[in-house]
Amino acid sequence: MPGLVILSGGLDSTVCIAIAARDTGGVLALTFDYGQRHRVEIDRAALVAAHYGAEHLVVGLDASRWGGSALTDPTIDVPEVVPGAAADAIPVTYVPARNLVFLAVAMGVSEARGVDVVYLGVNALDYSGYPDCRPEFVRAFEAAAALALKRGVEGNPVEVRTPLIALAKADIVRLGMSLGAPLHLTWSCYRGDDHPCGRCDACALRAKGFAEAGVPDPATPR
Amino acid sequence: MPGLVILSGGLDSTVCIAIAARDTGGVLALTFDYGQRHRVEIDRAALVAAHYGAEHLVVGLDASRWGGSALTDPTIDVPEVVPGAAADAIPVTYVPARNLVFLAVAMGVSEARGVDVVYLGVNALDYSGYPDCRPEFVRAFEAAAALALKRGVEGNPVEVRTPLIALAKADIVRLGMSLGAPLHLTWSCYRGDDHPCGRCDACALRAKGFAEAGVPDPATPR
Repeated sequence: MPGLVILSGGLDSTVCIAIAARDTGGVLALTFDYGQRHRVEIDRAALVAAHYGAEHLVVGLDASRWGGSALTDPTIDVPEVVPGAAADAIPVTYVPARNLVFLAVAMGVSEARGVDVVYLGVNALDYSGYPDCRPEFVRAFEAAAALALKRGVEGNPVEVRTPLIALAKADIVRLGMSLGAPLHLTWSCYRGDDHPCGRCDACALRAKGFAEAGVPDPATPR
Repeated sequence: MPGLVILSGGLDSTVCIAIAARDTGGVLALTFDYGQRHRVEIDRAALVAAHYGAEHLVVGLDASRWGGSALTDPTIDVPEVVPGAAADAIPVTYVPARNLVFLAVAMGVSEARGVDVVYLGVNALDYSGYPDCRPEFVRAFEAAAALALKRGVEGNPVEVRTPLIALAKADIVRLGMSLGAPLHLTWSCYRGDDHPCGRCDACALRAKGFAEAGVPDPATPR
């Protein structure tokens, strides 16, 4: 049962590939080059895929053309975390429909390559408030994809697994360590400078996870 | 109410942009460069968009990397129409998850640009048997997208309109002519040689439509 992992090169998707490597008979890693400013994550995804001996497919998608996000539009600043800000607000780092697009492409690849399970490292507990990280979205997507694919019509839909969706960031760190995931290779910072900035939402969530897990972050600078 | 049209440059999507130009206050045309062998359709889409004074967004998406279709894989031949072949078989020109991916990207663009309605020129009557052309898929996708988008969470989902889905090809031809759509600019042939081959599924469906509508096909060679 081959599995496909949508691999950003960050902490969550790296723990996902560790789970997929444990639970499936062969892993295909899928990374998107969507014009993100933290392009270093693509290099890290390649290193993580290589760590698991997984084929690594990088699909170019020109999301910078449609704009609307601080992650792809250089004219929008990546915000710093504001203590006390409403936790349920959707921030400007939200890339419109990102997981929808990533999952859609993953379904095309799955149909073409005979993949049975797609892993997506979304998390709806310690997360940034993006609507396409919620379980109700994932289930609705799975239903739509079953109707879109030849194999779905044939009664053999692709499953979408989100093993981290209900975990706290500290639990994700602990799980990754217990699985021997190469957390030292992961990159989370949205800014993509030589060192993680320590101030963006992704850095803050990562720091919280390692702190609450009681382990030092093994992250390496570029 | 701005509308977005997924515009391939073929007959159906060109009739769709004619409908959108009539019914919405401003049209954005979205075309995908997905490694299709009939790349001439991208040039035709640009001409059709220009005809309507619509902004034309061409998004690159490297579908050739995942393969599995005669439209993107040069090692798979585009088949000729075989009279008497089962009408419900899914042919090798099927691009896995194509409409799923196209709609997903259209949702990202819609969120970023404030588009309220997405037009997709699928047809479930005189069509090629692709599963992602069926109304049940479109409705399921709309539900998933509403959960994926910020504006959906805010109670303002993007509508997906498929005005041609129940029409026969001849009715699409008649509708296009009655709306003054520039059918002479459209390109349907999957092969993308200098002249339409007249033998692939797309050519056969187009010829059937014009013949049953009782009008000559105004198509122009490259």
